[in-house]
Amino acid sequence: MILTVTLNTALDLTYRIPALKPHASHRITEVTERPGGKGVNVARVLATLGHEVTVTGFTGGATGAVVQSQLTAIPGVVDALVPVAAPTRRTIAVVDEQTGDTTQLNEPGPTITPAEWSAFQEAYEDLLTQASAVALCGSLPPGVPVGAYAGLIRLAKAAEVPVLLDTSGEPLRRGVAARPDLVKPNAEELAELTGSHEPLRGAQDARRRGARSVVASLGTEGLLAVTPEGRWRATPPARIHGNPTGAGDSAVAGLLSGWEEQLPWPERLARAVALSAATVLAPVAGEFDRAAYEELVGRVAVTGDASAA
Amino acid sequence: MILTVTLNTALDLTYRIPALKPHASHRITEVTERPGGKGVNVARVLATLGHEVTVTGFTGGATGAVVQSQLTAIPGVVDALVPVAAPTRRTIAVVDEQTGDTTQLNEPGPTITPAEWSAFQEAYEDLLTQASAVALCGSLPPGVPVGAYAGLIRLAKAAEVPVLLDTSGEPLRRGVAARPDLVKPNAEELAELTGSHEPLRGAQDARRRGARSVVASLGTEGLLAVTPEGRWRATPPARIHGNPTGAGDSAVAGLLSGWEEQLPWPERLARAVALSAATVLAPVAGEFDRAAYEELVGRVAVTGDASAA
Repeated sequence: MILTVTLNTALDLTYRIPALKPHASHRITEVTERPGGKGVNVARVLATLGHEVTVTGFTGGATGAVVQSQLTAIPGVVDALVPVAAPTRRTIAVVDEQTGDTTQLNEPGPTITPAEWSAFQEAYEDLLTQASAVALCGSLPPGVPVGAYAGLIRLAKAAEVPVLLDTSGEPLRRGVAARPDLVKPNAEELAELTGSHEPLRGAQDARRRGARSVVASLGTEGLLAVTPEGRWRATPPARIHGNPTGAGDSAVAGLLSGWEEQLPWPERLARAVALSAATVLAPVAGEFDRAAYEELVGRVAVTGDASAA
Repeated sequence: MILTVTLNTALDLTYRIPALKPHASHRITEVTERPGGKGVNVARVLATLGHEVTVTGFTGGATGAVVQSQLTAIPGVVDALVPVAAPTRRTIAVVDEQTGDTTQLNEPGPTITPAEWSAFQEAYEDLLTQASAVALCGSLPPGVPVGAYAGLIRLAKAAEVPVLLDTSGEPLRRGVAARPDLVKPNAEELAELTGSHEPLRGAQDARRRGARSVVASLGTEGLLAVTPEGRWRATPPARIHGNPTGAGDSAVAGLLSGWEEQLPWPERLARAVALSAATVLAPVAGEFDRAAYEELVGRVAVTGDASAA
């Protein structure tokens, strides 16, 4: 199975209202509620692609119970979240029905105690024994040490499980130094890590800092991969319009899925770009449009070569 | 015991953020979570005043479970909420830390099935046998008939339990026609009911429509009571600044409390005005400042006389 780690899980709420006006009172037209956090989104896409996925991270309180009951209802997903005392955070996306513009309200994550962090690390080591790959995704809740991902990468490498890291800021900086197999920063995260606003230079620098391979997501321009096997760019066939929420998580799922099936890099990248574009096109944020994915995957342009790493 | 009915209970969330900007992303600084809905607020104040209160209405889902566990933790409050399949709604007050201005987001209530509405009416009839007074508070969730309060008033009268109604719109109009002992509209609700923007005329008209007594809340100007025993105005000693959330519910609690203790009208009204003002002054929305209440209650000006009904 593929293991995804989401230390800062969330209950994601979407509220549709005619238009948000500060300091007014609003009746919400429609409420949707689903389990969230980057690794959870990645798991949902992997399961839809037919992979067996186990989700770990933290769960607490009534919000955590809702996250778990909804996760368990997804075929192919196994819930291995570790219980904590503080409640799982909510995130709220308030969508203006007229314009589609979104206002985001994010609760702070629950504070994790040292004992809970230790319990997680033990559970994670157990799960690694059955994992074919692991993805470490998203921000850290309060109480988890900033070097957490570096430690989890070392444990994965000791267990000989390939490890992908998708985070930002100091947790990314420390994580890269622990030599993960793959990092997937966006352009902004890569620039923050390396100081370079030129993606190719940034990706090369991230490899020097410790990442074996770097796949940078460049928004509507697709992906740039710099790996020991070669260097590629993968570009969607047309400029895609829609809601980019979850597009990066779908790209991670595409990369993991291609890894699992031992596809060559160009095919992995095409899959990741097509999934990402099919997520932007889907009517519900974070879902992907299966028909669009199947239509797009053969039309992603992949350029580069296998010697120019 | 005093029975309060909240058909549209809520889990009330308060989010503090520096300032709300539409279409931006916000990290919430502080989250507070408490059981809500008008009758729940009334019960909380009554319990603080030392009365035994039973709370009924509907509860469902994970949000309802949180409402119930928090309600049960309040000394003096008994939870008699009736379970339903759909989840209890959330309301979110987003408070700008700089200005104190509040943006309100209210989820729609759960849809109540006919069988659930029947189950509630049976539970309510049972509870009436032990009640010394009943307050029917707030809006109706979808699925509950618009004449619901009229039916609940008839049941209370059949059981010889005095009944207070605090709602608005068509449920108020139909409820008044069923001859409740007391209605507590604000100026706007009274104008909508009667067509008169002059509170004294409106209150007299509401009595002609069926209410035995009318206590109209006039915001910072206090209360106007028109009753078979006389007519009074009760005014706070000074203009009160603060957060008016829950001030009307505290006034209802003051009226019920005075009713229960068989105080004469001027003392009931003084208590209601002082509780209402002490709620506006409290740092947390919907709580009341006990010291302010005790200081204010002797300084409320009550004018009028016992013959001018």
